[in-house]
Amino acid sequence: MSVSALSVSALSDSQIEDLITQSLAARENSYSPYSKFRVGAALRTTDGKVFQGCNVENASYGGAICAERTAFVKAVSEGHRRFVAIAVSCDFNSFITPCGICRQFMNEFGKSLEIFFVNDDRTYKRAILEDLLPFAFGPEDLPDNSEKQKA
Amino acid sequence: MSVSALSVSALSDSQIEDLITQSLAARENSYSPYSKFRVGAALRTTDGKVFQGCNVENASYGGAICAERTAFVKAVSEGHRRFVAIAVSCDFNSFITPCGICRQFMNEFGKSLEIFFVNDDRTYKRAILEDLLPFAFGPEDLPDNSEKQKA
Amino acid sequence: MSVSALSVSALSDSQIEDLITQSLAARENSYSPYSKFRVGAALRTTDGKVFQGCNVENASYGGAICAERTAFVKAVSEGHRRFVAIAVSCDFNSFITPCGICRQFMNEFGKSLEIFFVNDDRTYKRAILEDLLPFAFGPEDLPDNSEKQKA
Amino acid sequence: MSVSALSVSALSDSQIEDLITQSLAARENSYSPYSKFRVGAALRTTDGKVFQGCNVENASYGGAICAERTAFVKAVSEGHRRFVAIAVSCDFNSFITPCGICRQFMNEFGKSLEIFFVNDDRTYKRAILEDLLPFAFGPEDLPDNSEKQKA
Ligand SMILES: [Zn+2]
Ligand SMILES: [Zn+2]
Ligand SMILES: [Zn+2]
Ligand SMILES: [Zn+2]
Repeated sequence: MSVSALSVSALSDSQIEDLITQSLAARENSYSPYSKFRVGAALRTTDGKVFQGCNVENASYGGAICAERTAFVKAVSEGHRRFVAIAVSCDFNSFITPCGICRQFMNEFGKSLEIFFVNDDRTYKRAILEDLLPFAFGPEDLPDNSEKQKA
Repeated sequence: MSVSALSVSALSDSQIEDLITQSLAARENSYSPYSKFRVGAALRTTDGKVFQGCNVENASYGGAICAERTAFVKAVSEGHRRFVAIAVSCDFNSFITPCGICRQFMNEFGKSLEIFFVNDDRTYKRAILEDLLPFAFGPEDLPDNSEKQKA
Repeated sequence: MSVSALSVSALSDSQIEDLITQSLAARENSYSPYSKFRVGAALRTTDGKVFQGCNVENASYGGAICAERTAFVKAVSEGHRRFVAIAVSCDFNSFITPCGICRQFMNEFGKSLEIFFVNDDRTYKRAILEDLLPFAFGPEDLPDNSEKQKA
Repeated sequence: MSVSALSVSALSDSQIEDLITQSLAARENSYSPYSKFRVGAALRTTDGKVFQGCNVENASYGGAICAERTAFVKAVSEGHRRFVAIAVSCDFNSFITPCGICRQFMNEFGKSLEIFFVNDDRTYKRAILEDLLPFAFGPEDLPDNSEKQKA
């Protein structure tokens, strides 16, 4: 991921390690009887608070909500709208990237979010949201809504 | 709502009042620049914990997550899967019922959930989820998944 | 399904048989590698045209679109907005009911839609949408949008 | 869009013009009373068939289905799974890019899809899906599902 590799994380090493730990722990509450694929996320706000999320699936597959979106709605519902970074972990030995639905959802709150894809062994890759959803369709693309992101 | 009117709430009057208060307060964090329609929810677990949720919208309208689902994923991500009741409030003088997406999402965790539709003046109506989503498509309808609800 | 049992279908027996046949055939194009659960739907407009739909799943489970919604967006994209009935079939010997997401989606176009749940052996049950999504949240519930359904 | 600018379209000029014309026409059937934002799409299969789609919104904002997904489910439900290009048009003078939900949905059927963002005056920009959803989470990322894309 060349673009992001050029930038430096806004987080300290210990903050990154904490986010990784929390994303791995967040998997524990996953409700994923259909995919049998547990995912955890940990989202850090600009003022240093961390929200854990997990995937919550549904018999109607289309009703599933991913770990990343769970973390976001938790934070937003507690009054937070500015975020620095999110870490995402899954169960098997692999780097998992957010799905397009989550990229779209996160984009509403800023393109410069740092995303850490965490492996079981705590190794990770890193990207910026804008690198994962370039030319995003966002609040500024709706007519007369250019101010909406601030709402 | 005749069916539910016949049953008695598992909540005491003061528990109902508390749930109403929390659902009204939950609206404050709503992110709803597109509908301009703030919704709040308060979800009570069987062990008496309450989770507040609000709607979180998206420039891609289809990405929106309702207040009820926000409250549910918050609770699930904190380890809760058994719920007694949810109260839902909106901004204008009206009783609002959960959309079908939320009914489907909530059904995953039990058909007997009590739902309170709360008006601005704290008056409310009450129903049981099964009354709002009769003949639901649920975990037991998927082949070989009859045990999934317990997962 | 007592309520609907009291009403008489607007369709003739041969029209019902045709809808059943088409919903069974519609399963053939199902893209369902994740649930391995093929679903077909056949939607009849007020002017007698029938649109077939199938479920189309996605690696991100939440991206799945059900057979019913596929049939609806096909019809709407061809200029149709008034519907009489939909038949829904699945693979295994069972009556399948639409999920809450589909009930919500169909409600946008009228509460009196007839729904046939079809078994593999062509036996079926029948309901009216309003029976499956009572007290629906619809276009008329949004502020200043009471005319939207006609849009 | 530098990456795609380096590649050459698999379509002839007249095929591109036809796709643009059909995407503009597809807007006519849009059901968009909430966003008041009509979108049209035209999807071309590898064997030269074109499917038109439009956005179909819902009172529950989260129930909305975009024009791109409408075109895809139409095509899949008619037996098509291999696609060359999609053109997307909206009403106001702007290049519109697909939302992340649609990018995720389209990715299921191949990363090399050409996407044309069409302006009202028929000018357009072009990208490849992989450029818009890099490091996608797809069928190959699910355990034991590496063969699913072919299903
Ligand atoms: Zn996701
Ligand atoms: Zn809802
Ligand atoms: Zn459905
Ligand atoms: Zn879209």
